[in-house]
Order: sequence, then structure tokens, then C-alpha cells
Amino acid sequence: MAEISANKARTIIRKALAKGDEMGFKPLSVVILDAGGHVKAFERADGAAPGRFGIAHGKAYGSVMLGMAGTAQMARAEQQAYFMAAVNGVYGGQVVPVPGGVLVRDKRGAVIGAVGVTGDTSDNDVIAAMAGIEAAGLIGEA
Amino acid sequence: MAEISANKARTIIRKALAKGDEMGFKPLSVVILDAGGHVKAFERADGAAPGRFGIAHGKAYGSVMLGMAGTAQMARAEQQAYFMAAVNGVYGGQVVPVPGGVLVRDKRGAVIGAVGVTGDTSDNDVIAAMAGIEAAGLIGEA
Amino acid sequence: MAEISANKARTIIRKALAKGDEMGFKPLSVVILDAGGHVKAFERADGAAPGRFGIAHGKAYGSVMLGMAGTAQMARAEQQAYFMAAVNGVYGGQVVPVPGGVLVRDKRGAVIGAVGVTGDTSDNDVIAAMAGIEAAGLIGEA
Amino acid sequence: MAEISANKARTIIRKALAKGDEMGFKPLSVVILDAGGHVKAFERADGAAPGRFGIAHGKAYGSVMLGMAGTAQMARAEQQAYFMAAVNGVYGGQVVPVPGGVLVRDKRGAVIGAVGVTGDTSDNDVIAAMAGIEAAGLIGEA
Repeated sequence: MAEISANKARTIIRKALAKGDEMGFKPLSVVILDAGGHVKAFERADGAAPGRFGIAHGKAYGSVMLGMAGTAQMARAEQQAYFMAAVNGVYGGQVVPVPGGVLVRDKRGAVIGAVGVTGDTSDNDVIAAMAGIEAAGLIGEA
Repeated sequence: MAEISANKARTIIRKALAKGDEMGFKPLSVVILDAGGHVKAFERADGAAPGRFGIAHGKAYGSVMLGMAGTAQMARAEQQAYFMAAVNGVYGGQVVPVPGGVLVRDKRGAVIGAVGVTGDTSDNDVIAAMAGIEAAGLIGEA
Repeated sequence: MAEISANKARTIIRKALAKGDEMGFKPLSVVILDAGGHVKAFERADGAAPGRFGIAHGKAYGSVMLGMAGTAQMARAEQQAYFMAAVNGVYGGQVVPVPGGVLVRDKRGAVIGAVGVTGDTSDNDVIAAMAGIEAAGLIGEA
Repeated sequence: MAEISANKARTIIRKALAKGDEMGFKPLSVVILDAGGHVKAFERADGAAPGRFGIAHGKAYGSVMLGMAGTAQMARAEQQAYFMAAVNGVYGGQVVPVPGGVLVRDKRGAVIGAVGVTGDTSDNDVIAAMAGIEAAGLIGEA
């Protein structure tokens, strides 16, 4: 399956967390999913709340399953709240439709997975995610 | 149970996808349900996001279970969001109340199933669904 | 994502159903999943029971998620029933651990999806699945 | 809440995977949970099946929630299968009662989390988990 390799996943996590530290963000949690929405790697920084895996996962999972990153999901949720609520029914309540869910593409534009970051504001979560994805030589769509 | 035959289901899928290609829509996914809301046939075009089965299914499933096509469901959701949320509680979260869920009737007007299309805008999804249903000699109610 | 293309999926379904007709099997249902366990295509022959999508899906889904085809799952279930019961808890009850779930590999041996067939005996379901997979030029592991 | 630090979690994962490579095991997946059963870190080696997060998680989760490692859970499941089935009802189907779920204790014997490993035989999964835990200077109970 198309996926972010374990090596690249580790780079994304390390660099996203480092970006957060550098910017003075609150402790972040970072998940990497493959192109089928399955967990490849995750790390929760010391000091982050215990439930952060689920939020990071929900941001990335919706991105993969719908082929639509967090910013676009949020726009849809604001226009048509009942649609995103229904989507969550279909996907077992596993979708968190806000920025911080970032689609990852390879050089030819194919989706190979997604990154989900949570812990600070949604906008700051995106900054950390993009720093990680770029450090791994991949292309993010927030 | 009344149902769309396998032959007609194949025609609907083929023609709906062909209509999407012809119109330049994004890659579509098309599901056919029988009159009991059970899956008869499905195809997801190459390039569509992995989670599209659930969305296509949710559009068609709500249509059959409520006897109300996607356009009418959306009108109800916009007037009374809590009603469609409650419906989703009853049906296990499997209803996506937007256009693209199309009831299919035989020549005498009896519901024999539903078609669900997802991938482009809801309005374009309906165009593809109707093209497929008409090519199969059946009557659609969007 | 690595997946069986829509074209190949259609070939697998057509040839698996044709094999069933030729052998005099009961009406079959055939699902094709991608390498992430997501539905790519499905068809239920006329005369098959309405709930057959779930059984076909469950056979193929467990195969992809565990990387273990139906025959190996059945052996494990017979040795250690509580293990397969626990697996089903983890995967939301979506695993049917019997033959008829067939892993599909590309020429280099990578898993690109799975086929699930149900309707006749488990052994006959495998015969139909393998006929479809071979007709598509792919390699099945039953 | 007592937890394995991010640094130690990273060491456990790296060393458990290295042990698997060294021993020629199949590709492993390794999860680290905190003392509340919440995900701290995870990595799935390239080549492992997509659903392995759930299995690794289920081994570790049952260990933390019951305060009983995988080997003891398996013994109980073999004596009294209905008890472990009931436990799974209580914990939402998230318990996989086989070896590879390892409790982690600090120097004073307090449980600070659990490690879950899956991918090879249950016994080999334990070997990898223990190698990781020992490399991090912690005490494992398999």
C-alpha cells in the first residue's frame, strides 16, 4: 500500500515536535496514517493530555477517508453542519473536521497518507505538521 | 424483495460513471441498494478517496429507509437538523441526507431500490445518478 | 494507494460469478477491497440473500487487516477461538474468519487488496474467487 | 499520570524493532500506553499488515486495564473463555488476551504503562517487547 515509510514517519514526527518547541507551542501529539487511514506512527509529547491520540487521529482520518484536508472539512462543517455530522455517523465518529489534518502527497500528487497534529490552536497545529512534512521531502495539503 | 437486477445495476453504474467522465466530474463512486436497503452492487472509480463507499451508501440508505430521496432529506435537515440527527440515531449513523441519494421506481411507481453517488458536488452527483437510472429504463426520484 | 483497478475489479467479479454459474454453485456475492480494506467494487447475483454484502466483506476485510487469508484465519479460530473473537472486537465485528477471503498480490508479492466471496460452501467460494483473480492476471492466496 | 516518557517510549520502540530484525521476525508493530491505557507512541514497521495498530493496542490495553499481562490473560481465556469475552464487553472489545502485551513497572514496582507488540508469533512478540523495555531501563512483566 502507498504509505509514508517508517523512516519518513519518524522524521515528520520529530520535526513537527521540534517546530512546536521552537515556536513555544503547547505539547503536541502527531499521528501518521497510511493511504487507507491506518495508523503508521504516533507520538504524544510529555505534558500533553492523555486523550490526544484520538483527536490527532480524527483530524488525519477524515482527511484520508474523504480525500479532503482539515481546512476544507471545516469550511464544509460551517456551511452544512448536518453533513459533517452525518459523515461522522458513517465513519464511526472518527472524524475531527478542523485544521491540523493534513493530506500528504508524493511528487506525482498521489495521496500517500495524512498527518494529524493537535495540542495548540488549529492554525499552530498546521504549522507544526507542515514543518514535519516538508522536512521529509513530501507535499502537504492543509 | 423487489430489487434492481444485477444486469440493470451494472448498467446504472457503467452509465453513471460514463456521464461523470463525459462531464469532467471528479472520480465518482456509485452504489445500488435493493428495496430493503441492502447492497446489490458498487463501484469506486480509480482516483476516488478510499472512504467513498460509506458516503455513497449513506445517501442511498437513507433514501430507501425513509422513502425520501436526498433532496427532500436535505430540505428536512436544513429546517430541522435535530430530526435528521435523531433519524441517524435510529439507523445507526448510516444516513447522509444530501442530494445524490436517488430513489428508483419501476414503471408502476413502486420503489425497487436506490442509487447513491458521491465524488463531485451533490448536484453533479445527481446528474450522474439520473443518467445511469434512465439508461437502465427505470425512473429516478432525486 | 495500491489497489486493484476498477477494470480488474470488474473482471474478477464477472469471472468469479461466471465460474459459479458454470459449476452450478448457488448465487454468489463478490467484493473487492483495496490494500487498506476499503470497498472498491461489489456485486450480488440475483437470488442471493440480502445480507450477503456483509459476509463477503467480512471475509475480505479480515484478510487485509491481518495480512492473513481466510484459510489461515479459520485455522487460528479453531485453535484459539478467543483470539479471533478478540480480533473481532478490535475490528468492530467486521471479520468473518473462514475460506472465501482471499488476499490478492501483485507480481512482486505485495498485497494490493482482497476478494471476498460468499454464497455456496466456503471451499466453493474459494474456487470462484481464484477463478476471478487468475482471470485478472493477479495472484491469490486463499 | 505515571507514564513512560516520550524519550523512553522511543527507545522501547527502536530497540524492540531492532530485536525483531536481528532475530529475523516478521515486521513488527509496537505500541506504548501510559498508566491510564492511553496511547503514548506507536510505530508499524514497513511491510506489516495495515490493521496491526489495533492488535498491538489490544494486547497492551488489556494489560493496563486489568493489571494483568498477556500471558496471564491467555491463561484465564483458556480456562474461562466467557470471562475474557465479558471483559471485552466492558472494555468495548479493545482487549486481545494473548502474549505480547507486557506491563511496564518502574524501579519501585509501580505500573507506569504497557507495551504491545504484534507481527510474529506471540512468544516472539514478547521477546521483542522485553528487549525494548530492558533497553529503556524499565522492568517488564510479560
